[in-house]
Amino acid sequence: MTRNLKLTLQYDGTPYVGWQRQAAGTSIQGLIEEALAPIEGNPVTVHGAGRTDAGVHALEQVATVTLTSTIGEATLCRALNAVLPDDVRVLAVQEAPPDFHARFSATGKTYEYRIVDAPFASPFIYRYAWHVPQALDVEAMRAAATALIGRHDFAAFQAAGSTVASTERTVEAIEWERGGGFDRPIAMRITGDGFLRHMVRNIVGTLVEVGSGRWEGSTVGSILASRARARAGPTAPAHGLFLVAVRY
Amino acid sequence: MTRNLKLTLQYDGTPYVGWQRQAAGTSIQGLIEEALAPIEGNPVTVHGAGRTDAGVHALEQVATVTLTSTIGEATLCRALNAVLPDDVRVLAVQEAPPDFHARFSATGKTYEYRIVDAPFASPFIYRYAWHVPQALDVEAMRAAATALIGRHDFAAFQAAGSTVASTERTVEAIEWERGGGFDRPIAMRITGDGFLRHMVRNIVGTLVEVGSGRWEGSTVGSILASRARARAGPTAPAHGLFLVAVRY
Repeated sequence: MTRNLKLTLQYDGTPYVGWQRQAAGTSIQGLIEEALAPIEGNPVTVHGAGRTDAGVHALEQVATVTLTSTIGEATLCRALNAVLPDDVRVLAVQEAPPDFHARFSATGKTYEYRIVDAPFASPFIYRYAWHVPQALDVEAMRAAATALIGRHDFAAFQAAGSTVASTERTVEAIEWERGGGFDRPIAMRITGDGFLRHMVRNIVGTLVEVGSGRWEGSTVGSILASRARARAGPTAPAHGLFLVAVRY
Repeated sequence: MTRNLKLTLQYDGTPYVGWQRQAAGTSIQGLIEEALAPIEGNPVTVHGAGRTDAGVHALEQVATVTLTSTIGEATLCRALNAVLPDDVRVLAVQEAPPDFHARFSATGKTYEYRIVDAPFASPFIYRYAWHVPQALDVEAMRAAATALIGRHDFAAFQAAGSTVASTERTVEAIEWERGGGFDRPIAMRITGDGFLRHMVRNIVGTLVEVGSGRWEGSTVGSILASRARARAGPTAPAHGLFLVAVRY
């Protein structure tokens, strides 16, 4: 008898090479697998919903694993948190249907990207936001971003050198918010049925060109239509990006 | 000609031995002095308003330094931020009257102490809040804290072994707030004319005994009246404490 378990995870990506196991460095996937192996008594493979890049954070990542161990879900959750480092937490462990797969069952994802547009970023946010040392026009970025809503070919916003079968994706919503507190970070939340590699970071890098006044907002639509990566803005840094939710 | 300069600073205390220079380890004072020395062309001494302990953070610490250098205040601020680590920032540099002293001119301070009362603390807050793994009764802590308002002898709440001329201090206000977001941290803000060593942390450690239901709220007044450190609760950990403002 095996059980298919759904793990909901949260992590600070700062010290890690990303979700996926790599030849060198510590990955979130590797940490979870190493924490599960002694409980299962055998090596295990964990599948994540999104393969977050090095330095990218997660408020809610989802992973699945098949176990023969009969350990209770709540006990497993506590046991994992007891051995994992403080910057990786298991929010929940739940039994899932046998055919549920963290990655292939996902029907959508929400990411958040945070920016501090001030002369400097505070010591409490610099690991979790892109520091842009000039004021950004959030309204201009909000308006320009509407060109991306809907089903489009996002080839212009995928990482250079990517090879995927289709570069069509549906962006369902893009929301902007100016936060409170000391740094008043700008947060962009984007929801879609799926994202190409670096797509969120390339969208942010492009919209910051608009927010800074260097590019007209209308360029975003023509960059999208061009399908040319060279036309879009730079890739925003990984440490401003959070995987916020996975939809099933 | 010398100028007396007021520096407003912010720092994440996690990796430091505290404000004050120590025989071993990196202090905030040492970092600021080392950043200023090449600008001044001579060693300098910086005086801080509050000697925050190892691991304590500051949203706003104030320091004074006397310089002969004619560097402009805004240029000095940028120059310091360029060489200081990201977790220490200079918010402002201003010329001050010759007799202004960060420590001796201060007439009051505000500290904030943050607590996460949940099964676990998220990866994004565990460095900045005390994790208490059970729900706390904020209303009970708020009510019990009122016994501390006013001018009292706070000997029961000072660090064991302290020797100061007087242990009388005035606590002007204690405010409690339940924050939003993922962790919903509890924040206690305390303002007074001055604080004994570990006084805020010992007050928090005592009030958490009340919030957890282990002690009656009425014990706080009798602990205060006893003037006996042994009666008060444990010292809350340093990493939940922030120096928030210094009043002049």
